[in-house]
Amino acid sequence: MRPLRLGMVGGGTGAFIGAVHRIAARMDGRFDLVAGTLSSDAGRARTSGLELGLAEDRIYTNFAQMAEAEAARADGIEVVSIVTPNHLHAAAAIPFLKAGIHVICDKPLTATMADAQALADVARTSPARFLLTHTYSGYAMVRQARAMVAAGAVGRIRVVQVEYAQDWLTEDSTSAQAMWRVDPDKAGGGAVGDIGSHAWHLLRFVTGLRITELAADMSSMVPGRRVDDNVQAMLRLEGGARGALWASQVAPGHDNTVRIRVFGDKGGLDWTHDDPGHLWFTPFGSPRQRLVQNGPGAVQAATQVSRVPAGHPEGYLEAFANLYAEAARLIRTGEGDVPGLQDGLDGMAFIAACQRSSAANGAWVTP
Amino acid sequence: MRPLRLGMVGGGTGAFIGAVHRIAARMDGRFDLVAGTLSSDAGRARTSGLELGLAEDRIYTNFAQMAEAEAARADGIEVVSIVTPNHLHAAAAIPFLKAGIHVICDKPLTATMADAQALADVARTSPARFLLTHTYSGYAMVRQARAMVAAGAVGRIRVVQVEYAQDWLTEDSTSAQAMWRVDPDKAGGGAVGDIGSHAWHLLRFVTGLRITELAADMSSMVPGRRVDDNVQAMLRLEGGARGALWASQVAPGHDNTVRIRVFGDKGGLDWTHDDPGHLWFTPFGSPRQRLVQNGPGAVQAATQVSRVPAGHPEGYLEAFANLYAEAARLIRTGEGDVPGLQDGLDGMAFIAACQRSSAANGAWVTP
Amino acid sequence: MRPLRLGMVGGGTGAFIGAVHRIAARMDGRFDLVAGTLSSDAGRARTSGLELGLAEDRIYTNFAQMAEAEAARADGIEVVSIVTPNHLHAAAAIPFLKAGIHVICDKPLTATMADAQALADVARTSPARFLLTHTYSGYAMVRQARAMVAAGAVGRIRVVQVEYAQDWLTEDSTSAQAMWRVDPDKAGGGAVGDIGSHAWHLLRFVTGLRITELAADMSSMVPGRRVDDNVQAMLRLEGGARGALWASQVAPGHDNTVRIRVFGDKGGLDWTHDDPGHLWFTPFGSPRQRLVQNGPGAVQAATQVSRVPAGHPEGYLEAFANLYAEAARLIRTGEGDVPGLQDGLDGMAFIAACQRSSAANGAWVTP
Amino acid sequence: MRPLRLGMVGGGTGAFIGAVHRIAARMDGRFDLVAGTLSSDAGRARTSGLELGLAEDRIYTNFAQMAEAEAARADGIEVVSIVTPNHLHAAAAIPFLKAGIHVICDKPLTATMADAQALADVARTSPARFLLTHTYSGYAMVRQARAMVAAGAVGRIRVVQVEYAQDWLTEDSTSAQAMWRVDPDKAGGGAVGDIGSHAWHLLRFVTGLRITELAADMSSMVPGRRVDDNVQAMLRLEGGARGALWASQVAPGHDNTVRIRVFGDKGGLDWTHDDPGHLWFTPFGSPRQRLVQNGPGAVQAATQVSRVPAGHPEGYLEAFANLYAEAARLIRTGEGDVPGLQDGLDGMAFIAACQRSSAANGAWVTP
Repeated sequence: MRPLRLGMVGGGTGAFIGAVHRIAARMDGRFDLVAGTLSSDAGRARTSGLELGLAEDRIYTNFAQMAEAEAARADGIEVVSIVTPNHLHAAAAIPFLKAGIHVICDKPLTATMADAQALADVARTSPARFLLTHTYSGYAMVRQARAMVAAGAVGRIRVVQVEYAQDWLTEDSTSAQAMWRVDPDKAGGGAVGDIGSHAWHLLRFVTGLRITELAADMSSMVPGRRVDDNVQAMLRLEGGARGALWASQVAPGHDNTVRIRVFGDKGGLDWTHDDPGHLWFTPFGSPRQRLVQNGPGAVQAATQVSRVPAGHPEGYLEAFANLYAEAARLIRTGEGDVPGLQDGLDGMAFIAACQRSSAANGAWVTP
Repeated sequence: MRPLRLGMVGGGTGAFIGAVHRIAARMDGRFDLVAGTLSSDAGRARTSGLELGLAEDRIYTNFAQMAEAEAARADGIEVVSIVTPNHLHAAAAIPFLKAGIHVICDKPLTATMADAQALADVARTSPARFLLTHTYSGYAMVRQARAMVAAGAVGRIRVVQVEYAQDWLTEDSTSAQAMWRVDPDKAGGGAVGDIGSHAWHLLRFVTGLRITELAADMSSMVPGRRVDDNVQAMLRLEGGARGALWASQVAPGHDNTVRIRVFGDKGGLDWTHDDPGHLWFTPFGSPRQRLVQNGPGAVQAATQVSRVPAGHPEGYLEAFANLYAEAARLIRTGEGDVPGLQDGLDGMAFIAACQRSSAANGAWVTP
Repeated sequence: MRPLRLGMVGGGTGAFIGAVHRIAARMDGRFDLVAGTLSSDAGRARTSGLELGLAEDRIYTNFAQMAEAEAARADGIEVVSIVTPNHLHAAAAIPFLKAGIHVICDKPLTATMADAQALADVARTSPARFLLTHTYSGYAMVRQARAMVAAGAVGRIRVVQVEYAQDWLTEDSTSAQAMWRVDPDKAGGGAVGDIGSHAWHLLRFVTGLRITELAADMSSMVPGRRVDDNVQAMLRLEGGARGALWASQVAPGHDNTVRIRVFGDKGGLDWTHDDPGHLWFTPFGSPRQRLVQNGPGAVQAATQVSRVPAGHPEGYLEAFANLYAEAARLIRTGEGDVPGLQDGLDGMAFIAACQRSSAANGAWVTP
Repeated sequence: MRPLRLGMVGGGTGAFIGAVHRIAARMDGRFDLVAGTLSSDAGRARTSGLELGLAEDRIYTNFAQMAEAEAARADGIEVVSIVTPNHLHAAAAIPFLKAGIHVICDKPLTATMADAQALADVARTSPARFLLTHTYSGYAMVRQARAMVAAGAVGRIRVVQVEYAQDWLTEDSTSAQAMWRVDPDKAGGGAVGDIGSHAWHLLRFVTGLRITELAADMSSMVPGRRVDDNVQAMLRLEGGARGALWASQVAPGHDNTVRIRVFGDKGGLDWTHDDPGHLWFTPFGSPRQRLVQNGPGAVQAATQVSRVPAGHPEGYLEAFANLYAEAARLIRTGEGDVPGLQDGLDGMAFIAACQRSSAANGAWVTP
């Protein structure tokens, strides 16, 4: 199966997530990057494109033109990755969707609900796929957890604790990564959107449960910061389960800790991004087990997204690459397990619910 | 310095916490157990007393009589440990306090606010000390954390995450330990009082901060259970800090995990009971450090309650013994660092606030 | 059962291991310390004895006199703890054994083979017990490991890796603890005797296997040091198993790491003193299990030496106390699981074999 | 910079290490796989080649023909990866080297010393590079360790403990991976070559020290196995340091544990493949530090081979890709840090020394 022809919007030299998407796309050899609007700045777009080996005539500075031009080519791109700041997701994705080009978009869906709605309207009528890179759902042991929950390993779920903690915004930062993330107009929110949405998705992905109500208390701890950098939330889930979600970017000692614990009436599961190749499973009344990726007890959903034998750690880039590989499989065969539009819309509803609840002094709201 | 003469109320053969108090009292040789109302059942009281080497005439079956009789003896007890179920704490402690005998009481203070008030009224006018065994404040590395916070190691506190999770009540239990703890009349509450109060105290002890408001959502997950077994709470603390508290007895995989994380504008601390001899300290922007009990960086407050060199683990019984050792020091010298009446009253206010908030659908309340 | 009357030789104020023995003796209430030759210095002996509450007439400065005097008293000691530097073990223990007083001696047995032989000659003909505090054999999870090995959980043993690493002698030290340990006349050896003997015993205790041959390479890394501070050894064990032993006191980062791994044809076990309440068990082909003290899967040999429920860490002092408790049980009932003379002699043979092999440039020798 | 044109020998469908090499080559976009002798079986070679998108005329079944044909093409490969069983390394590499095509070869160098010599003779006179994939030297935190050792962070090295433990050969296996590895004619040795050589290289890479003498005891634990599956070795290193090396494939519970500990007179380092993104550093007398990849304290040698921010785990495939990236850099610019011929020859000397020593009952030999 030849690689899919891939384009990219955003991700010029120096950008973090653009480089991640490119590695993810390359890792399994299912995509060839052949075109890009890597920057709106012509010089930076060109330099970045040449560095990546793009042909001069496929280095664009305007994504709408790019969509049009690529759609017109016999060898035009079949898929585009959108890796801009959030406020451009909808604007960038829409022309490609309209042109029938599949979209792989970074999360969260958009910066505003209006954008989300506009994007959804187009995506629903497009023959092209719209996919969303909720990275943590790409980890093999997260998929193992989901499969075990679905198979009843923990029984009926009672409690879910999920957190995403970082420390890089403990102080005011002027790095390129930070600048747009703390600008409410570009990000649409702070920690809640940037990492809280990942935590929410992880919960949704692993447990399969919807949040029926949440109460959130959001704060901005760094003087002068215009977005939230710490989110506390209590959760009520389908079926009577309870939970808590914590997202923070001001937690010194946490580089990038994402953790989910699921407790049911028959057992518990515990996974943390600090050690992503293991999943702790405790059948109530039995010794705790440390499952290892591709080791004893691994289920098909996990081995399918594993490349090397047990004891050979796979990490963040492999998780990301799993989403790309599943995207390729979905595009090629109609089967593939990767988040999409509905995840994006539900994530926006989660973000909005947190903001609404926090604005109402932590009142319970329904996402 | 000769050992103090100690009595005990509760703690007959088979009881968990009574045995713990006895080991704690013995460990450093500062107490001699010489009298007890170990059970209200005469036979069990006698058997238990003889097993512990008590003289026949100092084995009682009524704590009021015991207080009177011991106070009348020249060699009467100087201190009594109260290790009954919660609903008897006040009734048992009061006659000893009235008799001028120091009281070391298990937590929480009482089962009801009325009991707490009655006990406080007596304690405040008694020449005797009233002390409360909030075990986790006895750990050396918890004291290290408190001292470091006080010295500004983490800067201004922004976020505090505290949890206490167990799994032993995942299913309905008829063990002696469980029976009174799930009886609202005897316990006064479920997880919130039994372990939530420990989590609260740990937060208060380490950070020195009061909770200004909390919003709690308490649940009873096991069919037929009459008390809460899972508590979620969001916290607002003095100075604008935020936090979360989670206490659960239905979390399979957690034997007895107590964890506190404190994040400030200059650094973070992380301590867990799963590895109590270490404290993680991250000065923001520097590598994470794993401080070890009695090792490099240990402060006086921690070394003072350490018995063996770094690398020789001390545990739960040593933490408990530290409270007894400090109690002896306080009684002998007027100096000593052990929780007392005010901790007990504040803890009751915390429990009541959780109950009040949860009954009001998670409304913010002030403890 | 009343406590046994205990005496002590060595362990004056400031000594490390004497204080440990006293806590261990006190913890379970089975011994009362009533007499001691705590120091050969009269002033220090007296001060130490008074601090410990000994009667003036039972504070001795000569252990032979003490043995005679105590044996002559109706209320004389029944057991004595020998906690001197190694070169005095035999001299101190012999008069008590001759007087029919049980001896609990710190390890290694003696500083020289001649001493060991002299001690053994007396011990074998004495009605009194001779017991040896190989601390690590007192840990519940070490006993769990031994029981599992004996029950075939790992199958036929193939490989055993054991290590004991510290860092406190990385630099020249003039602390009281260090001074006699680096004096070949007082210690009889360096790391090999002080900690290597513990590692050896742990291997012997858990696996039940004898070393048939060993090849050792011992070094003294600190300039001017007169004893070994680093020991490498390859081991050949009964039944064809192979192994390695490493003991080092110059390993920065290791406070007091004692670790044993046992690998058989059906599974593996892994225990480390850095986390002594857990034992890792891997049945080959199944997920790894983390057994917790007093938790699911705990065997009688382990629960019998556990005091508190799963999740309440016990540590070094409890392990030591387990040896005292078992000693009391052995003395009282004839049953009890605590190392004795043969362990001591075998340990001396191990030490001597390491020294002999190392002197012969690592030739294989039989202990 | 356009990607280098890459060929491959070995690595047909289902092979483990061939797939790893391909992912590593793809990850950073510096190689394009365009030709291969993926199998000597014509059918399998063709199927594998088509799956990988090779042109029909560049799918070979004979590596010598491939070298000739590719050298003759204007667009011929510039680099070839040799991923066959060990006994074919020399035969496969030689024609490419003679044709001036760079070689990236899996380890160990060859199955026999004669092969190694033949290969070296050609490599030394070829204008092409010969590079060797000692994977663990590709990890960022291993490079961090090396740089810290070189900068004096641990002072003068005294002790080095290195191990590589797996469990997959605990029982007799007939998997394709196992079959050639336990065939002495194809592998040239068992655990000593397959994983012991990695452990040796890690030691050499991090410490920079040569082994002056070693004493080895090799065993074959599984009935009927014709190669060693467990290796114990004591090491004497340049400058008087001592060490131990353990390599085992029969250690249940170890998936693929590679660990190195380096102890000097000023501090210690500890790295394990079970958690490859962290490096423990203990400056003697100070708290232990856990360095994280791309976090505070990271040196240039480590950040240069890191792709994502601290807390985003990179693993085995990234380590492998680092070797490919450095190979590309070396080929393009003459600068690049990747093992080569001398590492291969030294590794062969290490393997031979272990075999010689073990055959001589553990006598000291010089590699």
